[in-house]
Amino acid sequence: MTRILYSHYDPSVKKTPSGIAPVITIEKGAPDALHRQVYQGYRKAIVDGNLRVGQRVPSTRVLALELGISRMPVLSAYAQLAVEGYFEGRVGSGTVVSRSLPERAAIAEIARGRPGKIRRERRRVSERCVSLPSPEGFYRSRGLGPFAVSQIAFEHFPLAVWNRLMTRHARNVQARSLDYGDPMGLKDLREAIAAYLRTARGVRCEAYQIMIVSGSQQGLEITARVLLDPGDQVWMEEPGYRFARSVFTSSGCTVVPVAVDAQGLNVGLGAGKSGAARAVLVTPSHQYPLGVTMSASRRLQLLDWAESSGSWIIEDDYDSEYRYEGVPVTSLQGLDRNSRVVYIGTFSKVLFPSLRLGYLVVPEDLAGRFLAARFALDIGPATFHQAVLASFIGEGHFARHIRRMRSVYAERRSALIESLREHLGSAVEITGAEAGMHLSAVLRGIPDKELSARGASGNLWLVPLSPFYVGKAARQGFVLGFGSTSLEQIPAAVHRLRTLLKSTSRLKHLAY
Amino acid sequence: MTRILYSHYDPSVKKTPSGIAPVITIEKGAPDALHRQVYQGYRKAIVDGNLRVGQRVPSTRVLALELGISRMPVLSAYAQLAVEGYFEGRVGSGTVVSRSLPERAAIAEIARGRPGKIRRERRRVSERCVSLPSPEGFYRSRGLGPFAVSQIAFEHFPLAVWNRLMTRHARNVQARSLDYGDPMGLKDLREAIAAYLRTARGVRCEAYQIMIVSGSQQGLEITARVLLDPGDQVWMEEPGYRFARSVFTSSGCTVVPVAVDAQGLNVGLGAGKSGAARAVLVTPSHQYPLGVTMSASRRLQLLDWAESSGSWIIEDDYDSEYRYEGVPVTSLQGLDRNSRVVYIGTFSKVLFPSLRLGYLVVPEDLAGRFLAARFALDIGPATFHQAVLASFIGEGHFARHIRRMRSVYAERRSALIESLREHLGSAVEITGAEAGMHLSAVLRGIPDKELSARGASGNLWLVPLSPFYVGKAARQGFVLGFGSTSLEQIPAAVHRLRTLLKSTSRLKHLAY
Repeated sequence: MTRILYSHYDPSVKKTPSGIAPVITIEKGAPDALHRQVYQGYRKAIVDGNLRVGQRVPSTRVLALELGISRMPVLSAYAQLAVEGYFEGRVGSGTVVSRSLPERAAIAEIARGRPGKIRRERRRVSERCVSLPSPEGFYRSRGLGPFAVSQIAFEHFPLAVWNRLMTRHARNVQARSLDYGDPMGLKDLREAIAAYLRTARGVRCEAYQIMIVSGSQQGLEITARVLLDPGDQVWMEEPGYRFARSVFTSSGCTVVPVAVDAQGLNVGLGAGKSGAARAVLVTPSHQYPLGVTMSASRRLQLLDWAESSGSWIIEDDYDSEYRYEGVPVTSLQGLDRNSRVVYIGTFSKVLFPSLRLGYLVVPEDLAGRFLAARFALDIGPATFHQAVLASFIGEGHFARHIRRMRSVYAERRSALIESLREHLGSAVEITGAEAGMHLSAVLRGIPDKELSARGASGNLWLVPLSPFYVGKAARQGFVLGFGSTSLEQIPAAVHRLRTLLKSTSRLKHLAY
Repeated sequence: MTRILYSHYDPSVKKTPSGIAPVITIEKGAPDALHRQVYQGYRKAIVDGNLRVGQRVPSTRVLALELGISRMPVLSAYAQLAVEGYFEGRVGSGTVVSRSLPERAAIAEIARGRPGKIRRERRRVSERCVSLPSPEGFYRSRGLGPFAVSQIAFEHFPLAVWNRLMTRHARNVQARSLDYGDPMGLKDLREAIAAYLRTARGVRCEAYQIMIVSGSQQGLEITARVLLDPGDQVWMEEPGYRFARSVFTSSGCTVVPVAVDAQGLNVGLGAGKSGAARAVLVTPSHQYPLGVTMSASRRLQLLDWAESSGSWIIEDDYDSEYRYEGVPVTSLQGLDRNSRVVYIGTFSKVLFPSLRLGYLVVPEDLAGRFLAARFALDIGPATFHQAVLASFIGEGHFARHIRRMRSVYAERRSALIESLREHLGSAVEITGAEAGMHLSAVLRGIPDKELSARGASGNLWLVPLSPFYVGKAARQGFVLGFGSTSLEQIPAAVHRLRTLLKSTSRLKHLAY
């Protein structure tokens, strides 16, 4: 349960690396004898640090074949390298670079002396990359402690079922499946996703409109490439997700922040600020970070605006799988009659993040454009996990998993709300608790960034609200994830949040 | 052996999709009785085509739970839907949408009437996507017949070993491995790759400089984002790989074609045309498409130019694993003393394409920039296959596989050269046969594009040389892959090529 990542500690990986032959130049008519050339080639590779302590070298037979020479000079060179302490023989793992060489190798490391020469002012990188946010912000919000966002209830994932499907598919890998797959994705998976979206989300789509991507971030990138040129204006929700913003800014687009109120993005406000924007990005099911669900009238208003201005709607429908209150709302895509919506979904939250699978539903007349843009980006998705996922959905495990997780998360959500109300009372305004795996605790006037840093140092993960604003932050507070925060952890975690809040002048009046 | 792709025909996928609950709005105080609302919700979903013939619906118990109502009205609605022929019960697979409904569903399909309304002139997409080449060109060159390029000897891939490693890792997946991995890639794999590159390619690198990507195309995209802004000039080899060109043009860069001669890219020519270019992309091990190996003096010349002009070198070292003639050449990166080289490698050709794994070796002072650019693009790579590959390399299978394949491809290459010389004589100039999995048959003056199309219609895959030129094509002829062309296929395929060539006026003199 607590081992980190796949076989990180597989000892075999460390002990027997490779057996790859080093770049040794052999000149047959040269004055130096062949065995001398082999000896010198290895010695140089070791001294230069290209071959490292413990690394396995090819057998004499294999090396002789590689170099196209007889085995005798190789045997002679290996013998000399062993005598001088460069090589050692190990039963069962052949010849390796001697483990008694660490110091010499370390000296070589320093002697290589590379970075010293670098003149920083001559190393210009692109302007578009300088403005990118650091991924640290992403990781800072999601340690393993309470309230981390984008974390799932790992212990409830049906690992046994998943591993069984993986093993079944691994056993049946056929040679032809090694070739490039369909750049749009595996047909079976696209059909399974189309059926799911039609049924559960009212999305109007056929399998040929589905493109498999590596998650919503890549989905958004591909969409931006198809729809937007440098200089174009794009509406984004204010507050909004900043790693989405960086997709637009690094494409040279101008982001127009449009305020979110209790009904979602304020369409009238957007039309006033930038009526001719080329596109708008919305998260209507569960706005990030506030969690608001976009109202039906706003949805229709947005669709009307898009059609009248010839603009595109990018609907990121993340977190739509879990709804606890209110009527289920059909996706914007399902309400659209003019094919103006590109729909983005991901399996990162409903299954697990390291799967790196998501999807786009694209307007049918743009399918060829999306295909070309995707191909230029990375050719297409890997096939294996697509097949596993298609079976997982097709055999009913997916629907079962969603149902189970909805009740797990519903319990955590209720406990969190109850605990927040009990400990913070009227100081807190809870928004966005109707759906998803996080809610927002709005706590006006608090120094949320500072408190977040203090919480993180104690493994309490509070994502501050104010940095989600491009302009002046209209709200302060925290996004609190409950995906990986268990029922047992919640009361103590909320109590710690309360202690933290009491330390600020703004909220020191909180009773006892 | 001939089954296509992973479990494409797994019958279970088609028969029991999902059991997902449709979007049904239930209003508890509404005038319509609950059972009536459920009935109408389903009826509408079926008539609208959101639920399809044969699709499984949730059990009455599950649906009642989902809707938060008692089971009675659901039972009653399901009974009515069954009586009216919308639902049918199937032993073992629960209730499904009736299979006797195909026509009605088809009518609904048409009645949905969406594309009719689309006014084409209002559907503006980006200029940068309009200029992208169609992926069809890529697929057109790589059918299953002789001479397809970028195809491997699928039948020689050690599937049994690979599947055993996959199964072992699949059995050991731990819950924590489901979380996002390191966006730079799995540590074990990066270490294994660094050791391989130091040894076999003379690359000067440590694991922290390695970034795992989904193949060389993505590697190039990330590199362009870090190094280049719109308006920058980039040298590319002329002739050169056009899907690489599209990475630069869709970034708004200007591509400066620089002619390739027998020593590789002509650095002096480039410096004359565009001395202040920000970067150059080269394929020094095996130039694509001509196959030339860049000479040592040109390598040093290029490194000097880059340092003096403050430019970057992007080294795509594809096809470096297989060398049949001449001395092994250290990579440009390994010769560089100023950290001006970004090195790109891929496992698509040395292992298999659908793996979608490759890597970058980045200058150490730029590692943070690359990380931010990669993160903005798609967060990071999926973890599972990285772990499998790390074991494959670490346990020595990778080195063994390269050695075996080198001899397989060496045989095919010799047979192809021999056959070309025999059948085409002095009409053909063979270039680039020293390394890799393809060679170029230069046949000056022939209508190579037209002949390629004619060959493809008969499953003979001839990639024409002339479209690789941005300017006037200095050479005509074909790139001939021998990766997936067996020894047995070669004589007949060359004979067919000869027949095709004899049909053109330029070469009808070919003896008998």
